[in-house]
Amino acid sequence: MISAGRQETFMAVILITGGARSGKSKRAEARARAFPGRPVYVATAEALDAEMEERIATHRARRGTDWIEREVPLDLAQALVATDGGGARLVDCLTLWLSNLLHAEREWEREVTELAGALPRFKSPVLLVTNEVGLGIVPDNALARSFRDAAGIMNQIIADVADEVEFVVAGLPMKLK
Amino acid sequence: MISAGRQETFMAVILITGGARSGKSKRAEARARAFPGRPVYVATAEALDAEMEERIATHRARRGTDWIEREVPLDLAQALVATDGGGARLVDCLTLWLSNLLHAEREWEREVTELAGALPRFKSPVLLVTNEVGLGIVPDNALARSFRDAAGIMNQIIADVADEVEFVVAGLPMKLK
Amino acid sequence: MISAGRQETFMAVILITGGARSGKSKRAEARARAFPGRPVYVATAEALDAEMEERIATHRARRGTDWIEREVPLDLAQALVATDGGGARLVDCLTLWLSNLLHAEREWEREVTELAGALPRFKSPVLLVTNEVGLGIVPDNALARSFRDAAGIMNQIIADVADEVEFVVAGLPMKLK
Repeated sequence: MISAGRQETFMAVILITGGARSGKSKRAEARARAFPGRPVYVATAEALDAEMEERIATHRARRGTDWIEREVPLDLAQALVATDGGGARLVDCLTLWLSNLLHAEREWEREVTELAGALPRFKSPVLLVTNEVGLGIVPDNALARSFRDAAGIMNQIIADVADEVEFVVAGLPMKLK
Repeated sequence: MISAGRQETFMAVILITGGARSGKSKRAEARARAFPGRPVYVATAEALDAEMEERIATHRARRGTDWIEREVPLDLAQALVATDGGGARLVDCLTLWLSNLLHAEREWEREVTELAGALPRFKSPVLLVTNEVGLGIVPDNALARSFRDAAGIMNQIIADVADEVEFVVAGLPMKLK
Repeated sequence: MISAGRQETFMAVILITGGARSGKSKRAEARARAFPGRPVYVATAEALDAEMEERIATHRARRGTDWIEREVPLDLAQALVATDGGGARLVDCLTLWLSNLLHAEREWEREVTELAGALPRFKSPVLLVTNEVGLGIVPDNALARSFRDAAGIMNQIIADVADEVEFVVAGLPMKLK
Protein backbone atom coordinates (compact mmCIF):
# COMPACT_ATOMS: atom_id res chain seq x y z
CA MET A 1 0.00 0.00 0.00
CA ILE A 2 2.78 2.41 0.86
CA SER A 3 4.67 3.47 -2.22
CA ALA A 4 8.36 2.94 -1.72
CA GLY A 5 9.07 5.95 -3.93
CA ARG A 6 10.58 3.84 -6.68
CA GLN A 7 10.69 5.44 -10.06
CA GLU A 8 8.75 3.82 -12.87
CA THR A 9 9.67 5.59 -16.06
CA PHE A 10 6.55 4.50 -17.95
CA MET A 11 4.34 6.06 -15.27
CA ALA A 12 4.25 9.55 -16.66
CA VAL A 13 1.31 11.34 -15.01
CA ILE A 14 1.42 11.37 -11.21
CA LEU A 15 -1.15 13.14 -9.03
CA ILE A 16 -0.15 13.84 -5.42
CA THR A 17 -2.95 14.97 -3.14
CA GLY A 18 -3.25 15.72 0.57
CA GLY A 19 -4.07 18.38 3.13
CA ALA A 20 -2.30 21.64 3.91
CA ARG A 21 1.29 21.07 5.12
CA SER A 22 0.98 17.34 4.65
CA GLY A 23 4.30 17.06 2.82
CA LYS A 24 2.76 16.82 -0.67
CA SER A 25 5.18 19.23 -2.33
CA LYS A 26 8.25 17.70 -0.72
CA ARG A 27 7.12 14.26 -1.86
CA ALA A 28 6.43 15.52 -5.40
CA GLU A 29 9.86 17.21 -5.55
CA ALA A 30 11.61 14.00 -4.54
CA ARG A 31 9.71 12.03 -7.16
CA ALA A 32 10.32 14.64 -9.88
CA ARG A 33 14.09 14.55 -9.19
CA ALA A 34 14.07 10.77 -9.62
CA PHE A 35 13.34 11.19 -13.34
CA PRO A 36 16.22 11.91 -15.72
CA GLY A 37 16.80 15.49 -16.90
CA ARG A 38 16.62 18.87 -15.22
CA PRO A 39 13.27 19.17 -13.45
CA VAL A 40 10.88 22.03 -14.26
CA TYR A 41 8.96 23.72 -11.46
CA VAL A 42 5.62 25.07 -12.73
CA ALA A 43 4.37 27.44 -10.04
CA THR A 44 0.69 28.38 -10.23
CA ALA A 45 1.12 30.79 -7.30
CA GLU A 46 1.61 34.49 -7.78
CA ALA A 47 3.35 36.47 -5.05
CA LEU A 48 0.38 38.80 -4.41
CA ASP A 49 0.84 39.24 -0.66
CA ALA A 50 3.45 38.79 2.06
CA GLU A 51 2.07 35.42 3.26
CA MET A 52 2.21 33.97 -0.24
CA GLU A 53 5.66 35.47 -0.90
CA GLU A 54 7.01 33.79 2.21
CA ARG A 55 5.48 30.45 1.24
CA ILE A 56 7.01 30.67 -2.25
CA ALA A 57 10.41 31.53 -0.76
CA THR A 58 10.25 28.56 1.65
CA HIS A 59 9.45 26.17 -1.21
CA ARG A 60 12.24 27.59 -3.38
CA ALA A 61 14.81 27.34 -0.57
CA ARG A 62 13.98 23.66 -0.07
CA ARG A 63 14.02 22.79 -3.76
CA GLY A 64 17.44 24.29 -4.46
CA THR A 65 18.60 26.15 -7.53
CA ASP A 66 18.88 23.34 -10.08
CA TRP A 67 15.24 23.64 -11.20
CA ILE A 68 13.97 25.43 -14.28
CA GLU A 69 11.21 27.73 -12.95
CA ARG A 70 8.02 28.84 -14.69
CA GLU A 71 5.24 31.00 -13.23
CA VAL A 72 1.98 29.82 -14.78
CA PRO A 73 -1.09 31.15 -13.02
CA LEU A 74 -3.53 30.26 -15.82
CA ASP A 75 -2.33 28.66 -19.06
CA LEU A 76 -1.18 25.36 -17.67
CA ALA A 77 -1.77 23.08 -20.65
CA GLN A 78 0.20 25.45 -22.93
CA ALA A 79 3.07 25.66 -20.42
CA LEU A 80 3.27 21.86 -20.32
CA VAL A 81 3.38 21.74 -24.15
CA ALA A 82 6.15 24.38 -24.16
CA THR A 83 8.30 22.50 -21.63
CA ASP A 84 7.75 18.97 -23.00
CA GLY A 85 10.72 16.84 -24.06
CA GLY A 86 13.07 17.61 -21.15
CA GLY A 87 12.94 16.64 -17.47
CA ALA A 88 9.85 16.03 -15.36
CA ARG A 89 7.47 18.93 -14.81
CA LEU A 90 6.11 19.54 -11.30
CA VAL A 91 2.87 21.55 -11.18
CA ASP A 92 2.42 23.06 -7.70
CA CYS A 93 -0.48 23.26 -7.29
CA LEU A 94 -3.74 22.53 -9.11
CA THR A 95 -5.96 23.98 -6.36
CA LEU A 96 -4.35 27.39 -6.74
CA TRP A 97 -4.64 27.11 -10.52
CA LEU A 98 -8.36 26.42 -10.10
CA SER A 99 -8.65 29.43 -7.82
CA ASN A 100 -6.86 31.58 -10.43
CA LEU A 101 -9.24 30.34 -13.16
CA LEU A 102 -12.26 31.24 -11.04
CA HIS A 103 -10.86 34.72 -10.25
CA ALA A 104 -10.19 35.30 -13.96
CA GLU A 105 -13.75 34.10 -14.71
CA ARG A 106 -12.49 31.39 -17.01
CA GLU A 107 -14.56 28.24 -17.63
CA TRP A 108 -12.79 26.03 -15.12
CA GLU A 109 -14.56 22.80 -16.02
CA ARG A 110 -13.63 23.13 -19.70
CA GLU A 111 -10.02 23.98 -18.81
CA VAL A 112 -9.70 21.04 -16.41
CA THR A 113 -11.13 18.70 -19.04
CA GLU A 114 -8.67 20.04 -21.63
CA LEU A 115 -5.77 19.53 -19.24
CA ALA A 116 -6.97 15.97 -18.53
CA GLY A 117 -7.10 15.32 -22.27
CA ALA A 118 -3.57 16.68 -22.82
CA LEU A 119 -1.84 14.91 -19.89
CA PRO A 120 -1.58 11.38 -21.34
CA ARG A 121 0.09 12.69 -24.53
CA PHE A 122 3.23 14.32 -23.08
CA LYS A 123 6.67 12.78 -23.60
CA SER A 124 8.11 14.05 -20.29
CA PRO A 125 6.59 13.11 -16.94
CA VAL A 126 4.13 15.45 -15.24
CA LEU A 127 3.69 15.48 -11.47
CA LEU A 128 0.69 17.43 -10.22
CA VAL A 129 0.21 18.51 -6.60
CA THR A 130 -3.34 19.16 -5.43
CA ASN A 131 -5.24 19.64 -2.16
CA GLU A 132 -8.06 17.80 -0.45
CA VAL A 133 -10.39 20.57 0.79
CA GLY A 134 -13.66 18.68 1.28
CA LEU A 135 -13.09 16.81 4.55
CA GLY A 136 -14.10 19.54 6.97
CA ILE A 137 -17.47 20.86 8.05
CA VAL A 138 -19.65 22.38 5.25
CA PRO A 139 -18.49 26.00 4.88
CA ASP A 140 -20.96 28.76 5.76
CA ASN A 141 -20.49 30.79 2.62
CA ALA A 142 -21.68 29.71 -0.82
CA LEU A 143 -18.45 30.74 -2.57
CA ALA A 144 -16.36 28.44 -0.36
CA ARG A 145 -18.87 25.64 -0.94
CA SER A 146 -18.70 25.97 -4.71
CA PHE A 147 -14.90 26.16 -4.59
CA ARG A 148 -14.64 22.94 -2.64
CA ASP A 149 -17.09 21.30 -5.03
CA ALA A 150 -15.01 22.44 -8.00
CA ALA A 151 -11.78 21.24 -6.36
CA GLY A 152 -13.28 17.81 -5.66
CA ILE A 153 -14.55 17.47 -9.24
CA MET A 154 -11.17 18.59 -10.64
CA ASN A 155 -9.32 16.05 -8.48
CA GLN A 156 -11.57 13.24 -9.72
CA ILE A 157 -11.09 14.27 -13.38
CA ILE A 158 -7.29 14.44 -13.10
CA ALA A 159 -7.05 11.28 -10.95
CA ASP A 160 -9.01 9.44 -13.65
CA VAL A 161 -6.31 10.05 -16.29
CA ALA A 162 -3.32 9.80 -13.94
CA ASP A 163 -1.09 6.72 -14.03
CA GLU A 164 -0.44 7.04 -10.32
CA VAL A 165 -2.26 8.83 -7.50
CA GLU A 166 -0.85 9.27 -4.01
CA PHE A 167 -2.57 10.64 -0.90
CA VAL A 168 -0.04 12.13 1.54
CA VAL A 169 -0.73 12.29 5.29
CA ALA A 170 1.94 13.45 7.78
CA GLY A 171 4.57 13.23 5.04
CA LEU A 172 3.73 9.60 4.24
CA PRO A 173 2.19 8.56 0.90
CA MET A 174 -0.70 6.13 0.48
CA LYS A 175 -1.03 4.72 -3.01
CA LEU A 176 -4.57 5.23 -4.35
CA LYS A 177 -3.76 4.14 -7.90
CA MET B 1 -5.50 -2.14 -0.67
CA ILE B 2 -7.49 -0.74 -3.56
CA SER B 3 -10.76 -2.57 -3.92
CA ALA B 4 -11.18 -3.76 -7.48
CA GLY B 5 -14.91 -3.25 -7.19
CA ARG B 6 -15.66 -6.97 -7.34
CA GLN B 7 -18.99 -7.98 -5.98
CA GLU B 8 -19.06 -10.27 -2.99
CA THR B 9 -22.66 -11.29 -2.46
CA PHE B 10 -22.13 -12.30 1.16
CA MET B 11 -20.89 -8.80 1.99
CA ALA B 12 -24.23 -7.16 2.63
CA VAL B 13 -23.54 -3.94 4.54
CA ILE B 14 -21.12 -1.55 2.83
CA LEU B 15 -20.18 1.88 4.19
CA ILE B 16 -18.61 4.33 1.76
CA THR B 17 -17.11 7.45 3.30
CA GLY B 18 -15.15 10.42 1.97
CA GLY B 19 -15.09 14.18 1.59
CA ALA B 20 -17.39 16.45 -0.41
CA ARG B 21 -17.25 15.69 -4.15
CA SER B 22 -14.85 12.84 -3.61
CA GLY B 23 -16.79 10.46 -5.84
CA LYS B 24 -18.45 8.55 -2.94
CA SER B 25 -21.94 8.48 -4.48
CA LYS B 26 -20.70 7.45 -7.91
CA ARG B 27 -18.69 4.63 -6.33
CA ALA B 28 -21.69 3.51 -4.24
CA GLU B 29 -23.96 3.56 -7.31
CA ALA B 30 -21.57 1.36 -9.26
CA ARG B 31 -21.34 -1.11 -6.37
CA ALA B 32 -25.13 -1.14 -5.84
CA ARG B 33 -25.70 -1.96 -9.55
CA ALA B 34 -23.31 -4.91 -9.27
CA PHE B 35 -25.82 -6.72 -7.03
CA PRO B 36 -28.70 -8.60 -8.66
CA GLY B 37 -32.16 -6.98 -8.77
CA ARG B 38 -33.39 -3.44 -9.39
CA PRO B 39 -31.47 -1.07 -7.09
CA VAL B 40 -33.32 1.19 -4.65
CA TYR B 41 -32.11 4.76 -4.14
CA VAL B 42 -32.93 5.96 -0.61
CA ALA B 43 -32.47 9.73 -0.67
CA THR B 44 -32.18 11.42 2.72
CA ALA B 45 -32.08 14.85 1.06
CA GLU B 46 -35.11 17.05 0.76
CA ALA B 47 -35.20 19.64 -2.02
CA LEU B 48 -35.55 22.61 0.33
CA ASP B 49 -33.55 25.15 -1.67
CA ALA B 50 -32.23 25.72 -5.17
CA GLU B 51 -28.69 24.52 -4.37
CA MET B 52 -30.01 21.23 -2.99
CA GLU B 53 -32.48 20.81 -5.88
CA GLU B 54 -29.64 21.16 -8.37
CA ARG B 55 -27.49 18.63 -6.50
CA ILE B 56 -30.36 16.11 -6.41
CA ALA B 57 -30.99 16.61 -10.15
CA THR B 58 -27.28 16.04 -10.95
CA HIS B 59 -27.24 12.80 -8.96
CA ARG B 60 -30.47 11.59 -10.61
CA ALA B 61 -29.22 12.36 -14.13
CA ARG B 62 -26.07 10.32 -13.50
CA ARG B 63 -27.88 7.36 -11.95
CA GLY B 64 -30.37 6.92 -14.79
CA THR B 65 -34.03 5.98 -14.57
CA ASP B 66 -33.79 2.30 -13.68
CA TRP B 67 -33.69 2.91 -9.93
CA ILE B 68 -36.59 2.66 -7.51
CA GLU B 69 -36.53 5.98 -5.62
CA ARG B 70 -37.53 6.69 -2.03
CA GLU B 71 -37.30 10.01 -0.17
CA VAL B 72 -36.54 9.20 3.46
CA PRO B 73 -35.43 12.22 5.48
CA LEU B 74 -35.92 10.57 8.90
CA ASP B 75 -37.26 7.01 9.21
CA LEU B 76 -34.37 5.18 7.64
CA ALA B 77 -34.56 1.85 9.48
CA GLN B 78 -38.27 1.49 8.61
CA ALA B 79 -37.62 2.33 4.95
CA LEU B 80 -34.94 -0.37 4.81
CA VAL B 81 -37.36 -2.89 6.34
CA ALA B 82 -40.03 -1.88 3.79
CA THR B 83 -37.69 -2.30 0.79
CA ASP B 84 -35.96 -5.51 1.96
CA GLY B 85 -36.02 -8.61 -0.23
CA GLY B 86 -35.35 -6.97 -3.62
CA GLY B 87 -32.24 -5.32 -5.06
CA ALA B 88 -29.55 -3.46 -3.15
CA ARG B 89 -30.51 -0.30 -1.29
CA LEU B 90 -28.26 2.75 -1.54
CA VAL B 91 -28.65 5.28 1.29
CA ASP B 92 -27.31 8.68 0.20
CA CYS B 93 -26.33 10.00 2.65
CA LEU B 94 -26.07 9.33 6.39
CA THR B 95 -24.66 12.78 7.20
CA LEU B 96 -27.78 14.47 5.85
CA TRP B 97 -29.95 11.99 7.71
CA LEU B 98 -28.11 12.90 10.92
CA SER B 99 -28.64 16.58 10.16
CA ASN B 100 -32.37 15.93 9.61
CA LEU B 101 -32.60 14.06 12.93
CA LEU B 102 -30.96 16.96 14.75
CA HIS B 103 -33.28 19.51 13.11
CA ALA B 104 -36.30 17.38 14.06
CA GLU B 105 -34.93 17.16 17.62
CA ARG B 106 -34.90 13.40 17.52
CA GLU B 107 -32.50 11.40 19.72
CA TRP B 108 -29.82 10.84 17.08
CA GLU B 109 -27.60 8.53 19.12
CA ARG B 110 -30.51 6.15 19.83
CA GLU B 111 -31.60 6.19 16.17
CA VAL B 112 -28.05 5.52 14.92
CA THR B 113 -27.72 2.64 17.38
CA GLU B 114 -31.06 1.20 16.22
CA LEU B 115 -29.98 1.44 12.59
CA ALA B 116 -26.69 -0.29 13.44
CA GLY B 117 -28.63 -3.07 15.17
CA ALA B 118 -30.95 -3.53 12.17
CA LEU B 119 -28.31 -3.48 9.39
CA PRO B 120 -26.86 -6.99 9.85
CA ARG B 121 -30.32 -8.57 9.66
CA PHE B 122 -31.44 -7.48 6.18
CA LYS B 123 -31.68 -9.97 3.31
CA SER B 124 -30.85 -7.42 0.57
CA PRO B 125 -27.57 -5.52 0.55
CA VAL B 126 -27.39 -2.02 2.01
CA LEU B 127 -24.83 0.52 0.80
CA LEU B 128 -24.50 3.63 2.94
CA VAL B 129 -22.77 6.82 1.84
CA THR B 130 -21.42 9.12 4.53
CA ASN B 131 -19.09 12.12 4.87
CA GLU B 132 -15.86 12.74 6.72
CA VAL B 133 -16.32 16.21 8.25
CA GLY B 134 -13.73 16.19 11.05
CA LEU B 135 -10.47 16.73 9.18
CA GLY B 136 -10.50 20.51 9.03
CA ILE B 137 -9.74 23.17 11.60
CA VAL B 138 -12.00 23.16 14.73
CA PRO B 139 -15.14 25.16 13.76
CA ASP B 140 -15.76 28.45 15.58
CA ASN B 141 -19.38 27.78 16.45
CA ALA B 142 -20.53 25.20 18.99
CA LEU B 143 -23.32 23.83 16.78
CA ALA B 144 -20.87 22.94 14.01
CA ARG B 145 -18.55 21.35 16.59
CA SER B 146 -21.30 19.17 18.02
CA PHE B 147 -22.45 18.21 14.51
CA ARG B 148 -18.99 17.05 13.52
CA ASP B 149 -18.69 15.14 16.79
CA ALA B 150 -22.03 13.44 16.13
CA ALA B 151 -21.05 12.62 12.52
CA GLY B 152 -17.76 11.09 13.66
CA ILE B 153 -19.49 8.98 16.33
CA MET B 154 -22.16 7.85 13.84
CA ASN B 155 -19.52 6.82 11.31
CA GLN B 156 -17.71 4.74 13.93
CA ILE B 157 -20.93 3.01 15.01
CA ILE B 158 -21.98 2.14 11.45
CA ALA B 159 -18.44 1.16 10.39
CA ASP B 160 -18.31 -1.23 13.33
CA VAL B 161 -21.27 -3.31 12.00
CA ALA B 162 -20.42 -2.93 8.30
CA ASP B 163 -18.97 -5.87 6.39
CA GLU B 164 -16.96 -3.50 4.22
CA VAL B 165 -15.84 0.12 4.64
CA GLU B 166 -14.28 2.19 1.88
CA PHE B 167 -12.73 5.67 2.10
CA VAL B 168 -12.92 7.47 -1.26
CA VAL B 169 -10.39 10.17 -2.23
CA ALA B 170 -10.37 11.73 -5.73
CA GLY B 171 -12.76 9.04 -6.94
CA LEU B 172 -10.48 6.21 -5.77
CA PRO B 173 -11.47 3.84 -2.94
CA MET B 174 -9.21 2.75 -0.10
CA LYS B 175 -10.40 -0.36 1.70
CA LEU B 176 -10.61 0.25 5.46
CA LYS B 177 -12.40 -3.01 6.25
CA MET C 1 -2.86 -2.07 4.59
CA ILE C 2 -5.11 -2.44 7.59
CA SER C 3 -3.10 -2.97 10.75
CA ALA C 4 -4.35 -6.01 12.58
CA GLY C 5 -3.53 -4.34 15.88
CA ARG C 6 -0.82 -6.84 16.76
CA GLN C 7 1.71 -5.70 19.28
CA GLU C 8 5.31 -5.44 18.19
CA THR C 9 7.37 -4.78 21.27
CA PHE C 10 10.33 -3.38 19.36
CA MET C 11 8.10 -0.71 17.82
CA ALA C 12 8.31 1.86 20.53
CA VAL C 13 7.11 5.16 19.05
CA ILE C 14 3.63 5.03 17.54
CA LEU C 15 1.83 8.05 16.04
CA ILE C 16 -1.93 7.77 15.61
CA THR C 17 -3.54 10.52 13.53
CA GLY C 18 -7.06 11.19 12.26
CA GLY C 19 -9.96 13.62 12.31
CA ALA C 20 -12.18 14.67 15.19
CA ARG C 21 -14.14 11.75 16.67
CA SER C 22 -12.48 9.31 14.31
CA GLY C 23 -11.71 6.81 17.07
CA LYS C 24 -8.01 7.78 17.39
CA SER C 25 -7.95 7.84 21.20
CA LYS C 26 -9.82 4.56 21.54
CA ARG C 27 -7.40 2.94 19.11
CA ALA C 28 -4.38 4.38 20.97
CA GLU C 29 -5.75 3.19 24.32
CA ALA C 30 -6.18 -0.36 23.02
CA ARG C 31 -2.65 -0.37 21.65
CA ALA C 32 -1.18 1.11 24.85
CA ARG C 33 -2.85 -1.62 26.93
CA ALA C 34 -1.29 -4.30 24.72
CA PHE C 35 2.16 -3.39 26.08
CA PRO C 36 3.27 -4.86 29.42
CA GLY C 37 3.05 -2.71 32.55
CA ARG C 38 0.53 -0.19 33.84
CA PRO C 39 -0.19 2.35 31.11
CA VAL C 40 0.37 6.06 31.70
CA TYR C 41 -2.15 8.56 30.32
CA VAL C 42 -0.45 11.89 29.54
CA ALA C 43 -3.27 14.40 29.08
CA THR C 44 -2.31 17.65 27.35
CA ALA C 45 -5.83 19.01 27.90
CA GLU C 46 -6.66 21.34 30.74
CA ALA C 47 -10.25 21.47 31.95
CA LEU C 48 -10.69 25.18 31.21
CA ASP C 49 -14.35 25.12 30.19
CA ALA C 50 -17.43 22.91 30.46
CA GLU C 51 -17.09 21.46 26.95
CA MET C 52 -13.50 20.39 27.62
CA GLU C 53 -14.38 19.05 31.07
CA GLU C 54 -17.07 16.84 29.55
CA ARG C 55 -14.70 15.56 26.87
CA ILE C 56 -12.06 14.70 29.50
CA ALA C 57 -14.68 12.90 31.63
CA THR C 58 -15.88 10.84 28.62
CA HIS C 59 -12.33 9.77 27.82
CA ARG C 60 -11.62 8.86 31.44
CA ALA C 61 -14.83 6.82 31.80
CA ARG C 62 -13.90 4.78 28.72
CA ARG C 63 -10.28 4.20 29.77
CA GLY C 64 -11.12 2.90 33.23
CA THR C 65 -9.24 3.49 36.46
CA ASP C 66 -6.16 1.34 35.94
CA TRP C 67 -4.17 4.10 34.24
CA ILE C 68 -1.58 6.34 35.84
CA GLU C 69 -2.68 9.88 34.92
CA ARG C 70 -0.53 12.94 34.28
CA GLU C 71 -1.72 16.40 33.22
CA VAL C 72 0.99 17.86 31.02
CA PRO C 73 -0.12 20.93 29.11
CA LEU C 74 3.41 22.06 28.16
CA ASP C 75 6.49 20.14 29.30
CA LEU C 76 5.92 16.95 27.37
CA ALA C 77 9.49 15.79 26.82
CA GLN C 78 10.24 16.14 30.56
CA ALA C 79 7.08 14.22 31.50
CA LEU C 80 8.12 11.40 29.19
CA VAL C 81 11.57 11.31 30.79
CA ALA C 82 9.98 11.23 34.27
CA THR C 83 7.64 8.35 33.40
CA ASP C 84 10.13 6.25 31.43
CA GLY C 85 10.89 2.67 32.45
CA GLY C 86 7.32 1.53 33.24
CA GLY C 87 4.31 0.85 31.01
CA ALA C 88 3.49 2.52 27.73
CA ARG C 89 2.79 6.25 27.75
CA LEU C 90 -0.17 7.57 25.76
CA VAL C 91 0.02 11.27 24.87
CA ASP C 92 -3.47 12.60 24.06
CA CYS C 93 -3.06 14.77 22.11
CA LEU C 94 -0.24 16.57 20.30
CA THR C 95 -2.55 19.09 18.61
CA LEU C 96 -3.70 20.42 21.98
CA TRP C 97 -0.11 20.49 23.22
CA LEU C 98 0.80 22.59 20.17
CA SER C 99 -2.12 24.89 20.90
CA ASN C 100 -0.92 25.23 24.53
CA LEU C 101 2.62 26.05 23.34
CA LEU C 102 1.29 28.77 21.06
CA HIS C 103 -0.88 30.27 23.82
CA ALA C 104 2.10 30.27 26.19
CA GLU C 105 4.18 31.94 23.43
CA ARG C 106 6.74 29.17 23.54
CA GLU C 107 8.86 28.37 20.46
CA TRP C 108 6.76 25.50 19.16
CA GLU C 109 9.09 24.45 16.34
CA ARG C 110 12.06 24.11 18.71
CA GLU C 111 9.93 22.16 21.24
CA VAL C 112 8.57 19.82 18.56
CA THR C 113 12.10 19.20 17.28
CA GLU C 114 13.32 18.48 20.82
CA LEU C 115 10.46 16.03 21.37
CA ALA C 116 11.27 14.32 18.06
CA GLY C 117 14.91 14.03 19.15
CA ALA C 118 13.96 12.53 22.53
CA LEU C 119 11.34 10.00 21.30
CA PRO C 120 13.67 7.34 19.86
CA ARG C 121 15.68 7.16 23.11
CA PHE C 122 12.96 6.10 25.57
CA LYS C 123 12.90 2.60 27.07
CA SER C 124 9.08 2.43 27.43
CA PRO C 125 6.78 2.76 24.42
CA VAL C 126 5.23 6.12 23.57
CA LEU C 127 1.92 6.38 21.71
CA LEU C 128 1.05 9.85 20.44
CA VAL C 129 -2.41 10.89 19.28
CA THR C 130 -2.66 13.82 16.87
CA ASN C 131 -5.21 15.45 14.56
CA GLU C 132 -5.38 16.05 10.85
CA VAL C 133 -6.68 19.62 10.55
CA GLY C 134 -5.60 20.58 7.02
CA LEU C 135 -8.14 18.78 4.84
CA GLY C 136 -10.89 21.41 4.87
CA ILE C 137 -11.29 24.69 3.04
CA VAL C 138 -8.59 27.34 3.77
CA PRO C 139 -9.70 29.11 6.98
CA ASP C 140 -10.64 32.82 6.72
CA ASN C 141 -8.56 33.98 9.65
CA ALA C 142 -4.76 34.10 9.65
CA LEU C 143 -4.44 32.60 13.14
CA ALA C 144 -6.34 29.46 12.13
CA ARG C 145 -4.21 29.23 8.97
CA SER C 146 -0.96 29.43 10.89
CA PHE C 147 -2.23 26.88 13.43
CA ARG C 148 -3.07 24.37 10.74
CA ASP C 149 0.31 24.96 9.12
CA ALA C 150 2.05 24.37 12.45
CA ALA C 151 -0.01 21.21 13.10
CA GLY C 152 0.85 19.82 9.68
CA ILE C 153 4.57 20.53 10.14
CA MET C 154 4.51 19.00 13.65
CA ASN C 155 2.81 15.84 12.35
CA GLN C 156 5.46 15.45 9.63
CA ILE C 157 8.31 15.90 12.12
CA ILE C 158 6.90 13.35 14.59
CA ALA C 159 5.86 10.89 11.85
CA ASP C 160 9.43 11.01 10.57
CA VAL C 161 10.87 9.61 13.82
CA ALA C 162 7.94 7.28 14.61
CA ASP C 163 8.34 3.53 14.18
CA GLU C 164 4.68 3.25 13.22
CA VAL C 165 2.11 5.73 11.96
CA GLU C 166 -1.61 4.99 11.68
CA PHE C 167 -4.34 7.13 10.11
CA VAL C 168 -7.74 6.36 11.68
CA VAL C 169 -11.01 6.90 9.74
CA ALA C 170 -14.39 5.81 11.17
CA GLY C 171 -12.59 3.86 13.90
CA LEU C 172 -10.51 1.88 11.40
CA PRO C 173 -6.72 2.27 11.15
CA MET C 174 -4.75 2.58 7.91
CA LYS C 175 -1.07 1.85 8.30
CA LEU C 176 1.02 4.72 6.88
CA LYS C 177 4.35 3.45 8.22
